[in-house]
Amino acid sequence: MSTRSALANLVKQFVGEDPARAAHYLESLPEADAAKVLGALSHTLSAEVFRCFEARFAAGLLKEMGPELFGAVASRLDSQQAAEILRHLPEDRRGDLLDRIPEKAREQMREILTYPENSAGRIMVPDFLAFHSDAKVRSVIQKIRMIARKGLPVSYAYVVDSENKLAGVMNMRDLMLASPDAVLETMMRREVFSVQAFTDREEVADQLSKRRYFAVPVVDPENRLIGVIKAEHLIEDVQEEATEDLQKMFGAGGSERAFSPLGFSLARRLPWLHVNLATAFLAGAVVALFSEIIGKIPVLAVYLPVVAGQGGNAGAQSLVVVIRGLVMREIPPAKVRRLILKEAGIGVLNGILIGSVTGVAAWLWHGNPFLGLVVALAMLVNLVIAGVTGAAIPLTMKALRLDPAQCSNIILTTFTDVMGFLALLGFGVLFKDHL
Amino acid sequence: MSTRSALANLVKQFVGEDPARAAHYLESLPEADAAKVLGALSHTLSAEVFRCFEARFAAGLLKEMGPELFGAVASRLDSQQAAEILRHLPEDRRGDLLDRIPEKAREQMREILTYPENSAGRIMVPDFLAFHSDAKVRSVIQKIRMIARKGLPVSYAYVVDSENKLAGVMNMRDLMLASPDAVLETMMRREVFSVQAFTDREEVADQLSKRRYFAVPVVDPENRLIGVIKAEHLIEDVQEEATEDLQKMFGAGGSERAFSPLGFSLARRLPWLHVNLATAFLAGAVVALFSEIIGKIPVLAVYLPVVAGQGGNAGAQSLVVVIRGLVMREIPPAKVRRLILKEAGIGVLNGILIGSVTGVAAWLWHGNPFLGLVVALAMLVNLVIAGVTGAAIPLTMKALRLDPAQCSNIILTTFTDVMGFLALLGFGVLFKDHL
Repeated sequence: MSTRSALANLVKQFVGEDPARAAHYLESLPEADAAKVLGALSHTLSAEVFRCFEARFAAGLLKEMGPELFGAVASRLDSQQAAEILRHLPEDRRGDLLDRIPEKAREQMREILTYPENSAGRIMVPDFLAFHSDAKVRSVIQKIRMIARKGLPVSYAYVVDSENKLAGVMNMRDLMLASPDAVLETMMRREVFSVQAFTDREEVADQLSKRRYFAVPVVDPENRLIGVIKAEHLIEDVQEEATEDLQKMFGAGGSERAFSPLGFSLARRLPWLHVNLATAFLAGAVVALFSEIIGKIPVLAVYLPVVAGQGGNAGAQSLVVVIRGLVMREIPPAKVRRLILKEAGIGVLNGILIGSVTGVAAWLWHGNPFLGLVVALAMLVNLVIAGVTGAAIPLTMKALRLDPAQCSNIILTTFTDVMGFLALLGFGVLFKDHL
Repeated sequence: MSTRSALANLVKQFVGEDPARAAHYLESLPEADAAKVLGALSHTLSAEVFRCFEARFAAGLLKEMGPELFGAVASRLDSQQAAEILRHLPEDRRGDLLDRIPEKAREQMREILTYPENSAGRIMVPDFLAFHSDAKVRSVIQKIRMIARKGLPVSYAYVVDSENKLAGVMNMRDLMLASPDAVLETMMRREVFSVQAFTDREEVADQLSKRRYFAVPVVDPENRLIGVIKAEHLIEDVQEEATEDLQKMFGAGGSERAFSPLGFSLARRLPWLHVNLATAFLAGAVVALFSEIIGKIPVLAVYLPVVAGQGGNAGAQSLVVVIRGLVMREIPPAKVRRLILKEAGIGVLNGILIGSVTGVAAWLWHGNPFLGLVVALAMLVNLVIAGVTGAAIPLTMKALRLDPAQCSNIILTTFTDVMGFLALLGFGVLFKDHL
């Protein structure tokens, strides 16, 4: 008996009792192997296990399945699961899944896909409990009892008026404490916090986090209830969005993942690498302007990477602290000036300290105090520029309504390279008789 | 009447009706101004508004308050709010708050502070509902009714045995659907997912996100219930943790914030800037080795920043994609080799494309095809090294159980500078008769 069939037998034994446990076990295998194990089970069993997978894993698994198994699991998905899996599928694979899920879910999915990426509409799940405002508590509890038997989660009952507009909300506790004969209209909380489908998901996360809600209803412009977003689903999105900025800084697109196909990665990165190349040529052109003095005093070339590299890293420190502050919404417009001044101050202090250290090191190495002076002055100038531009770049981009992280490090190093070279070689020309 | 007192009157008018709205309004003011408005209200009113503030804002506000107002709001905090605010206070301010909160909360806070930063114990809230397993559903609902009157949120009722060990859980829906005379023991869900107080908060976020729970009980090593963590509280933590990596890459500490005091920022950044300086000198030393040929052919100095800078940016693209993959837990050990190979492949393709572009540009600019060849070859070599080291650095750090982001960009640029210079100047020596 092969390892694979042994595995399949093992899984089959405990799938019946606990599909979630079987799913957790399979999630630890490579996707191709998990697909093979699922393929060895009956369609009913494999669909049952599939429903317990984490959405990202499920999406990865779909790629590894043959058409028959794919059809079997897809046709048994409910709309909430289909919505979550769909979000983790690349665009060109979504059609395959849409074609095979149950028709009701398909229509809901098509609607969800009309909303922009990163909007509330895209991450909402279409399954929620809504009741008319003239319903009685008793009938609501009856309905929830039915849903509970199917093992589906419920946390809020939303109340809509005769035009299906969101009018109120009741949580399970409210229902539990209410008299069974009460009408929802008289019991419901009318102050219901909702978001528009076009709201940015970062904004939704911010609101949920601040208001300490664990779910929020999504409405269309006419205030009709169209879905729900839950806090626990947002955690992954927030993590994803926060780490996107990392990639954008160097011109790797926000959408690239570690295992994106090579062509996809190349297509995202190459344009920005060419931008970076153009800026590098700009820095090279500054050096070319001074090639006469470099020919005479080649030791200056030794300090080009020292001054420029140090400026690049110090500037990046300012840059990332500010980008993070923007992501965490900690920088109100009134404090922008104070922040730039702070980073300028850090630049001056860094410049004095590190300029002195570098200057003395250069003096001792090459035995020329004037070389030390040139290097120290260039370092001071460049670290001040690094602090100011590091803070100013994302704040300016934000003010211009651009993404503050996008290619910010490429812009920064252009400044620190060009200005670093100008300072070092400029001071070199000034003191050339002593070098 | 001054603007401030006008503001205070305005706030006073609607505080009584809706303290949350007043709090939201005050959150949009600078902290010092909000503190002044609170100071103009009665202690009871200001404490009522204060309870509605977001924890981070509340913590910032405490710093701006005089001792009297501070005492008034602190003494009226419940333990859940005190715990959240405490997490956002710097360590040296925590004592002040602890001294003034009610005694019961103080004891709970001291226990929370014994757990490590970033552990479940540190972020749990100590208020939860626990019942003995022999309690009846009726009495549980009675208790919840009382708590609901105080306006406090409840989502789960935890069940403990005679030794206070966690034995089960019931959500509000379970209670709503249960017979009032049923005993918890017979009704509760026994499969209750809990975390240990020492568990890392990133792990907790991951589990909540995967299992789709909106709260999780925290237990001590004897399985005694000591607190609860809610998904909506984790959102901010997750965002914070994910963006810390940004800062660590360049050697700005994870703990620094945009408005940290200047001395704090300097103390975090300077040590890493000195590390970077040492590596920059290493790169400078490579240039010094070749100063003879630079003296003869100064045009080579023009391409030092081009080759090194391009390697640095391309390598950073690989680096950040991998760091993000690690943060999102998308890179199982079995796939590490595949990932490094992918980034090596991207390096080769980048190298061929960008090497050709740069080589042709150099040829056209300086009219020498051999210069173009030297530049193209150096670029190819450096971009391959950039791709491999960019992926290998965080993966190696992770394998060594170090933080994969920590100073990773400093290590990377050391490689891309040193190898870029070696390649460019080495090929320069090889073709020196043609340059």
